[in-house]
Amino acid sequence: MPRPQKILAITGGVGGAKLALGLSKILNSEQLMFAVNVGDDFTHLGLHISPDIDSLTYALAEENNQELGWGRSGETWQFIDTLGSLGGEDWFRLGDKDMALHTRRSQLLGQGTSLTDATAELTRRMGIEHTVAPVSDDPIRTVVQSDRGELAFQHYFVRERCAPAVSGFYFDGMQNATLNPVITAWLADCDGIIICPSNPFVSVAPVIEVPGFLEATAHIPTIAVSPIVAGAAIKGPAAKMMQELNIPATAVAVAEHYQYHYPGLLDGFVIDVSDGESLDAIALPSVAIQSVMKSLEDRIALAERCLAFFEELTT
Amino acid sequence: MPRPQKILAITGGVGGAKLALGLSKILNSEQLMFAVNVGDDFTHLGLHISPDIDSLTYALAEENNQELGWGRSGETWQFIDTLGSLGGEDWFRLGDKDMALHTRRSQLLGQGTSLTDATAELTRRMGIEHTVAPVSDDPIRTVVQSDRGELAFQHYFVRERCAPAVSGFYFDGMQNATLNPVITAWLADCDGIIICPSNPFVSVAPVIEVPGFLEATAHIPTIAVSPIVAGAAIKGPAAKMMQELNIPATAVAVAEHYQYHYPGLLDGFVIDVSDGESLDAIALPSVAIQSVMKSLEDRIALAERCLAFFEELTT
Repeated sequence: MPRPQKILAITGGVGGAKLALGLSKILNSEQLMFAVNVGDDFTHLGLHISPDIDSLTYALAEENNQELGWGRSGETWQFIDTLGSLGGEDWFRLGDKDMALHTRRSQLLGQGTSLTDATAELTRRMGIEHTVAPVSDDPIRTVVQSDRGELAFQHYFVRERCAPAVSGFYFDGMQNATLNPVITAWLADCDGIIICPSNPFVSVAPVIEVPGFLEATAHIPTIAVSPIVAGAAIKGPAAKMMQELNIPATAVAVAEHYQYHYPGLLDGFVIDVSDGESLDAIALPSVAIQSVMKSLEDRIALAERCLAFFEELTT
Repeated sequence: MPRPQKILAITGGVGGAKLALGLSKILNSEQLMFAVNVGDDFTHLGLHISPDIDSLTYALAEENNQELGWGRSGETWQFIDTLGSLGGEDWFRLGDKDMALHTRRSQLLGQGTSLTDATAELTRRMGIEHTVAPVSDDPIRTVVQSDRGELAFQHYFVRERCAPAVSGFYFDGMQNATLNPVITAWLADCDGIIICPSNPFVSVAPVIEVPGFLEATAHIPTIAVSPIVAGAAIKGPAAKMMQELNIPATAVAVAEHYQYHYPGLLDGFVIDVSDGESLDAIALPSVAIQSVMKSLEDRIALAERCLAFFEELTT
């Protein structure tokens, strides 16, 4: 099939945002849009925090914190350290610069601006040309079912540092969520979907399970990049979750997960070269590429290779 | 009369807080309580900000910013600078550490804690032993009447940098405000009131005009320290306001203002040595003292002299 001309990239936070940045360097804003998970969003200290939108925003602005692997570059911690000294909650490490983003977003939302429009304003202010579209303006909240009970995602992920053993997930509000009309409009002539190397359970699922999404994208060639490389997650708890769910923590199992739960979704699958020997075990057109992205060049190379991969698909 | 054993000190922000600190060094928490103006309070960026309570808190904790003359020591500005870059309002310069205080207070208030209890928690966390009592837990908001119309106090004071010419003031909510019960209880055996060198119009007035305050304090010896020294305000717009109100910007006029508007309030008046020649013009027992406080020693010395001044009163 031809190389797609209009891509929707699905992404969660830091891991997926690496490929997102690569894609943004070779496709302009008419050719590429991002559909972003909002299941991690939560209200904290009176602020609406959208961790995945923010990670993508900082990555696209090339303002992501390289040392920490999360948050904004040039960050300082006077606010949160002082808040702790005053008896406030400091488990969620809000940087001083990061606070400004949450405060401005919360103010816009409080004035009745949609999350989509607030994100458009904030990304524009940060010099980002591409549309960063929350998958929905409605609240979708990921709940982690674990051996310590049900936990709001950030409580599991940050407060409890992913220590609880997970047994499942659900997305509160999903049934009543409407797919972002900006995404719906984009899908009308979108001819390629790339699922970035994000967590299948808590980053990708709450995007593709929004009512109507799978139907609207059934005819669009879709590929996914494995977030699992050589039995480990490059970033985040995906591998640990798979073990706790009694799924092998392998790229093959990620492909099987998508095929089993979302039959027909994927037309192709991208794994890392280090997993090359598993290619034959994947019941999908697959390719093994250098997918561990350290430099900007790595990000661009993977983006290029993903786009080229569509041309190898025959569906 | 004897030296008082239990003092209520009335104060606004930075100027009054200097004497407040001096008093706190010689009187313990059983001997001294602060009644603080809340007319400057406002909600900004979703936060409840109490500028005078905060200035006093930072002063008593000896965490006030000496270089700036306002705010907290060791402050940084990453939040507000970033907020400005994101299109947010940055005219009120919220420091990164200062933000923590407002956030924690707002969270406590949001949980139903009173401003009195929230202030008690925050001052305790900052190591302050004395009670910092907002004059009321009810909203009292100073409105500045000016040649640019009516302005909320912080809009006048910070956003417009005191540029508008004032013609008057009123205190929205004052009629329905209840004097803080903590202050009412303190007044039962309080035997001396010191009005710190704060702005008579926008710092002291919104404290002493709380319904019931003047009646409850009529029998208690009260002295005031002039915020005007040698025709100028040590801090803030008091002198400029007096000129615009067609009042001479003098210590004598401050005394007359109190006597005219609050007859019987004052039993004594403290002016600076540099205004010593005006002593005879004040129709109250008065004393001229070194009242410009640069060092901690200056603050303590003025506090000591104020306490001694009560012994010179005969009423």
